[in-house]
Amino acid sequence: MKVTKFGGSSCAAASQFSKVKAIIEADSERKIVVVSAPGKRDDTDHKITDMLYLCHQFMQIGIGGDEVYDSISERFLTIQNELDLKIDLTEELEETRKLLKSDVKVDFTVSRGEYFSAKLMASYLGCQFVDAAEIIRFNQNNQLDTVQTKQLIREKIKDDCFVIPGFYGAKANGEIVTFPRGGSDITGSILAAALGVDEYENWTDVSGFLAADPRIVDNPKPLRRVTYEELRELSYMGANVLHEESILPARQRNIPIHILNTNAPNDAGTLIVPRAKRQDEDFVVTGIAGLKNFTVIDVEKYHMTEDISFFRKLCSVFEANNISIHHMPSSIDRVSIIVNEKEMKGLEKKILEEIDIYCSPDMIEITGGLSLIAVVGENMALRSGVSSRVFGSLADEEVNIRMISQGSSELNIIVGVANEDFEKSIQAIYNKFFEDE
Amino acid sequence: MKVTKFGGSSCAAASQFSKVKAIIEADSERKIVVVSAPGKRDDTDHKITDMLYLCHQFMQIGIGGDEVYDSISERFLTIQNELDLKIDLTEELEETRKLLKSDVKVDFTVSRGEYFSAKLMASYLGCQFVDAAEIIRFNQNNQLDTVQTKQLIREKIKDDCFVIPGFYGAKANGEIVTFPRGGSDITGSILAAALGVDEYENWTDVSGFLAADPRIVDNPKPLRRVTYEELRELSYMGANVLHEESILPARQRNIPIHILNTNAPNDAGTLIVPRAKRQDEDFVVTGIAGLKNFTVIDVEKYHMTEDISFFRKLCSVFEANNISIHHMPSSIDRVSIIVNEKEMKGLEKKILEEIDIYCSPDMIEITGGLSLIAVVGENMALRSGVSSRVFGSLADEEVNIRMISQGSSELNIIVGVANEDFEKSIQAIYNKFFEDE
Repeated sequence: MKVTKFGGSSCAAASQFSKVKAIIEADSERKIVVVSAPGKRDDTDHKITDMLYLCHQFMQIGIGGDEVYDSISERFLTIQNELDLKIDLTEELEETRKLLKSDVKVDFTVSRGEYFSAKLMASYLGCQFVDAAEIIRFNQNNQLDTVQTKQLIREKIKDDCFVIPGFYGAKANGEIVTFPRGGSDITGSILAAALGVDEYENWTDVSGFLAADPRIVDNPKPLRRVTYEELRELSYMGANVLHEESILPARQRNIPIHILNTNAPNDAGTLIVPRAKRQDEDFVVTGIAGLKNFTVIDVEKYHMTEDISFFRKLCSVFEANNISIHHMPSSIDRVSIIVNEKEMKGLEKKILEEIDIYCSPDMIEITGGLSLIAVVGENMALRSGVSSRVFGSLADEEVNIRMISQGSSELNIIVGVANEDFEKSIQAIYNKFFEDE
Repeated sequence: MKVTKFGGSSCAAASQFSKVKAIIEADSERKIVVVSAPGKRDDTDHKITDMLYLCHQFMQIGIGGDEVYDSISERFLTIQNELDLKIDLTEELEETRKLLKSDVKVDFTVSRGEYFSAKLMASYLGCQFVDAAEIIRFNQNNQLDTVQTKQLIREKIKDDCFVIPGFYGAKANGEIVTFPRGGSDITGSILAAALGVDEYENWTDVSGFLAADPRIVDNPKPLRRVTYEELRELSYMGANVLHEESILPARQRNIPIHILNTNAPNDAGTLIVPRAKRQDEDFVVTGIAGLKNFTVIDVEKYHMTEDISFFRKLCSVFEANNISIHHMPSSIDRVSIIVNEKEMKGLEKKILEEIDIYCSPDMIEITGGLSLIAVVGENMALRSGVSSRVFGSLADEEVNIRMISQGSSELNIIVGVANEDFEKSIQAIYNKFFEDE
């Protein structure tokens, strides 16, 4: 059995609904369907969810909102009519309009996009509609009650095909609660985990993840397979992938997540797998991601390691100023503290003074404009020469390497370069690993 | 003017004394001569200083020592007679024997090697003998009184050639104090600094430092020039060079130190220079050194950087256990703490438990058998591609790189490899930078 989740663009219009139907019918394992609210049909369009937020603001302060709600209502009815569905949402949409004008919470209002989307999809696919409010349970602190949720899902979802709205659930008293992050993806992930399915298919408008940022690298290769760990590392360094929290339930049950494209259903997509399931035909490097605008604080102290409190005192200065340390590579008698430029802003002088007082260094230097690039790949550890190729590609472009950090896991190498070398460096590393193979 | 210092092997026998004389006479700038006690003449021989320590032990517990002292005395008298010197030490040697049997401190006893060596050398060179006790002043806490020392040196040492015994000085009351580390080298360094000479020549039995350990690399290239900073880094990583403390006075005055070979006085030797004086015809990499037997504690924690106290808490665990952190390279959500295997011994379980309690990591792993290799060179920062060549050379040998740390100064790169790859790695890096050029 597979859980399938269709994102906003896959539910944006009747024509997209037909694509979803074709996909569901192509594989009898696709029993559980989670849907988002209709997204944009084109660049000038609005997402239903955004319109519902707007609606809530208008209606709660009592200055209209009916016009916005009219458009929302019309979007759903158009899909219904174009697909010639048995269900008629007209009445429920009007009842909901009244509810939205009453004293409802924003979570209820914005959840209606997924709710109506799922109603239409269930009717169209001939599947059973199950309201997420009945199976996704939150506790009184608005946190997911995983035990209750699992039990409810297992009670309600069996031996049939089901359509479930994503993005929300409810407390025991019926009050609707939305997920703060990860939207409908997390609903699919929770269902996949609770039911222990073979695969969680996440249908989007892209054919999976790319090995590098397409704004930097021309037409980067798609990732066929990526491990949960690699995904985490790529997303940490700015790659635009699934929100981590949304994959957590599936990850905990080791359920593969397949990122697929509703508009090109035969594309291979990206399969997110547990570590053991990687196959060795893949590229050595899985992906390259990076972030700009870090600051380096270099601290030099003769016989640094002989002062056993040195590192602790140094870290304390940053902690006391509420600044996260991202990396701290060191050479002999010199350590480089890498922090976010934004977090340091306005605190430079204070930090330097405090390091001076607490750590008595021989020299402190602060340099901005550092970019960090992560070269990520589970297979890197198995093959020697990866570092050599990374640094070779940068040397060919005459990029000056400002720092290197690699822990004992060769899952990734972090390289620091000047901001102005950022794009060039990513392109060079990409070419070395993906174009030369 | 130059200060010259001659080590134990340069003063081991009459034949060595003649070499010293030839060297002094070859350059009229060589006015100040510091000597060590006679060293070994061959592998079966003993150093005078070692024999004096032995003598002290015997004589202080009153069970002889005369036989040992006889050999010491004979060594000096043989040199005196073979060189047909005007001076006759016979009487003073016998007086000293009596003194050693009285209630003298060990510092006095062991200082006599340099004392008599200098007396002979002064007579042989026709220079003035100045006892170190008169110019190297220690305070009541046995620490060098730099101000007094400088003043005394400037008063006594001018307009002539002088021979001064190394290794010791005296308190104001005349009590002899020896230097705890660095022996006669530090005496030369202090004299060079106090007199502001042009160069401090340190004459030894090797033609300078080598680019790598000759026990690992066959016939490694000598270093023509090395900066104080590079020397510090090479010595930190186990290269057998001058003791840091012994070069400090000269370093503070930016006086170049020239390591030369008494047995091959025309060899270029190694010139230790301040940073600015490096010349760009040198190799990119100055030297390669390394140490075995480090332990890595890998700590993995999801969203590590979001816990701003994480690094401080981690460092505190090691501090509380009195363990120095040598490096802590990190990747995403994973940091590797590198410590000395010896310091960790017996504390492994305790450390892991404490990290678990204070840092709540997702995973901790401890691995021994790590070697650290430092590739050092002031010129590295100026040329791109150094990292590429370092890692390329290791890849060619299929060495698995277990960690990399490079701060923002490209003065050195620290690479971690398994102990069993240590020699192979040093050889590979050496070949890449010194044989292929």
